[in-house]
Amino acid sequence: MHADILINARWVIPVEPDGVVLDHHSVALEDGRIVAILPTSEASEQIQADQTVDREQHALIPGLINAHGHSPMTLMRGLADDLPLMEWLDQHIWPAEARWVGEEYVQDGSQLAVAEMLAGGTTAFNDMYFFPEITARVSSAAGIRCCAGMIVIDFPSAWAGNSEDYIAKGIAMHDQFRNDPLVTTAFAPHAPYSVSRPVLERVRTLADELDVPVHIHLHETEHEISEHVAKHGMRPLADLSQIGLLSPSLVAVHMTQMNDNEIETFAESGGHIVHCPESNMKLASGFARVADWLSAGINVGLGTDGAASNNDLDMFSEMRSAAMLGKAVAADASAVPAAATLRMATLNGAACLGLQAETGSLEVGKAADIVAISLADARCQPVYHPISQLVYTCSADQVTDTWVNARHLYSSGQLTTLNVTDLVTRAQSWAERINAADSAD
Amino acid sequence: MHADILINARWVIPVEPDGVVLDHHSVALEDGRIVAILPTSEASEQIQADQTVDREQHALIPGLINAHGHSPMTLMRGLADDLPLMEWLDQHIWPAEARWVGEEYVQDGSQLAVAEMLAGGTTAFNDMYFFPEITARVSSAAGIRCCAGMIVIDFPSAWAGNSEDYIAKGIAMHDQFRNDPLVTTAFAPHAPYSVSRPVLERVRTLADELDVPVHIHLHETEHEISEHVAKHGMRPLADLSQIGLLSPSLVAVHMTQMNDNEIETFAESGGHIVHCPESNMKLASGFARVADWLSAGINVGLGTDGAASNNDLDMFSEMRSAAMLGKAVAADASAVPAAATLRMATLNGAACLGLQAETGSLEVGKAADIVAISLADARCQPVYHPISQLVYTCSADQVTDTWVNARHLYSSGQLTTLNVTDLVTRAQSWAERINAADSAD
Repeated sequence: MHADILINARWVIPVEPDGVVLDHHSVALEDGRIVAILPTSEASEQIQADQTVDREQHALIPGLINAHGHSPMTLMRGLADDLPLMEWLDQHIWPAEARWVGEEYVQDGSQLAVAEMLAGGTTAFNDMYFFPEITARVSSAAGIRCCAGMIVIDFPSAWAGNSEDYIAKGIAMHDQFRNDPLVTTAFAPHAPYSVSRPVLERVRTLADELDVPVHIHLHETEHEISEHVAKHGMRPLADLSQIGLLSPSLVAVHMTQMNDNEIETFAESGGHIVHCPESNMKLASGFARVADWLSAGINVGLGTDGAASNNDLDMFSEMRSAAMLGKAVAADASAVPAAATLRMATLNGAACLGLQAETGSLEVGKAADIVAISLADARCQPVYHPISQLVYTCSADQVTDTWVNARHLYSSGQLTTLNVTDLVTRAQSWAERINAADSAD
Repeated sequence: MHADILINARWVIPVEPDGVVLDHHSVALEDGRIVAILPTSEASEQIQADQTVDREQHALIPGLINAHGHSPMTLMRGLADDLPLMEWLDQHIWPAEARWVGEEYVQDGSQLAVAEMLAGGTTAFNDMYFFPEITARVSSAAGIRCCAGMIVIDFPSAWAGNSEDYIAKGIAMHDQFRNDPLVTTAFAPHAPYSVSRPVLERVRTLADELDVPVHIHLHETEHEISEHVAKHGMRPLADLSQIGLLSPSLVAVHMTQMNDNEIETFAESGGHIVHCPESNMKLASGFARVADWLSAGINVGLGTDGAASNNDLDMFSEMRSAAMLGKAVAADASAVPAAATLRMATLNGAACLGLQAETGSLEVGKAADIVAISLADARCQPVYHPISQLVYTCSADQVTDTWVNARHLYSSGQLTTLNVTDLVTRAQSWAERINAADSAD
């Protein structure tokens, strides 16, 4: 069999089947897809490869999928930490956004985010921000997969003046990128408290017509719930259910507030939850019941949230936090085990975005979205169980290679499609301007 | 002024005074100590240095202090994850320890731990394990500070047969290292449930005589409390208080179970708490009330715990977890802020070990225990607030230099006192033996 690339690895962790670790295996790629996974001892005989890549102390995993974020917010990374949520938003983030967000801001912030994600083994991300067509263009050019959110919110921004305008611009972006193999779209109404009911109803209709997911912040804090109950006489999830949004196309982010009934109803609906453990902790939003979600059969993806509330886009750290916090919340050290966590960060994330047939696991026929991680360092030794090591010990800097559609986007410490020196310079220039204005307020 | 070494840095973060960031400052070292901290613009005129080190995109901080661990357990890193605590201990860790622990095991495990800690910016650690004299010897040879625990426990081990034997061997170690500038000792009775009352009383007396801290696991789980109440009619802390152990020499580790009265009593006692957030989460031990401890004025250090329950010895990750989890538990995003967290990981840790006059902050007269961290990477940009960046964004791999007593122990990715290739080989050899036995059971 011919292959464009043959990767020989110490371990191949395909994620599907669940929990499997293949010792001394190889993955063969052709035309951007995985065409074979077999023991390295057989690969040398059976595969005629144009290029062979040896990763002798490495694990190969499917590319990580960051299922919730606001990529341009990398430019506000650490702008205002350790503040109560509303002070953080009212006095720092929103004024800075109102002043600075525009096409150039979104371009530079998205590129910085994509650079960090590719170097850390993330091959696809689900985004919600203004000027999403810029983020989509940046992503496509850099070679990473992006689900660009058709953001809708009840207040004007530099991108759109009202909900009709948001929706029109979102659909224009959807049309613009419909033939781009790396870009998909989702409706991204910000949250039930920031998007009025008629607009959510319109989103429901349009999402059906375009057959795209609906990506929304939901049940993030106790405050959100009590406000919604006071205003509308029901909890936000019940409201969304009435609108018809509680469905297999729902991608609900955060969900730190869920009672038993809601978990059951949500599971029955076939909706997806994106868990953002570090954002939930850092903003003191609440404790998500991840073990209960998994037991109920809900598909749970993982997201970093924006860099302003994390403060990184590191999916390894997010896996570690998810597994650890999940045990603490369940009061059970066996809850949210390593293999389930790796699955959340890969195949489950793909399912959130409707991409589970294309990516999220290493299987013949799927796109070659692959990450190599070195386990050679002293800090990672010895290795008893590679999946455990990936989740509990590895950090993003141990990623040595990232391929998307078999394109080698990160290799030997270098990004092949982005000029890091240039984008760091641009980030620093933004920070000088933003900081001067923030301090002056 | 003459200096052996002059380090010019983009930022110097001395920790004392609290929260200060000095832009473009330099630290001058002479005879292993800090002799000046001054603006770089003045340093070039005022300091005649034998060696100048430029760290133009770096922060200098005091060396991190890992205030609780079991360093030889690196050899069981990831041996048995995602298991209930008692199954983990009974069926995996304790059988493996009973079979394998000895001088060579402790030497190889301690060296692996020291390598990881030095490369990650840790310059001192507080340890509790069998054969502590081996860990002390390894540490002294490698150049890292170690507080070696005179471990006491009610069951026999390869090191000692009974409590009298433990205490005798501990005191022999104390005497052996009393003139070693890098080694101090503490009594380390394992826990109130594993060390009987008469032995704890003896430890109290001897700790006074030797003037050393008493390092103990305490109030780690709800189970520990309820068992102690059932057996002894009081909570463990009350029991220790009666014995006289609740004092400024107490270093109580974990403390996930504390009521308001206990926090108040503990604060009044002048005792120290070591918080191990990742171990507490991963073993589902409980949620520590760190914000309340800090408000009460308790001195709180940070520890990774052993690599078998973390699974790393990374103090950057531990700081991040401490700050994030602390906010979540307090339901307040402004709780456990970045500067307080960095202080826990440095000066507070030094105070736990009675070393606050020697290390834990960058101050003239203190030992030159210094770490440089590069903030140049895209994933760390832009930088608004360096302390925030250190706690919420940096990871251990960004450490570029570690000095202890001005000795350059980690530089340009290399450890200068340890052969990493050799110790990784030895760790892998141990893992093969341990794994074969663990799987066979």
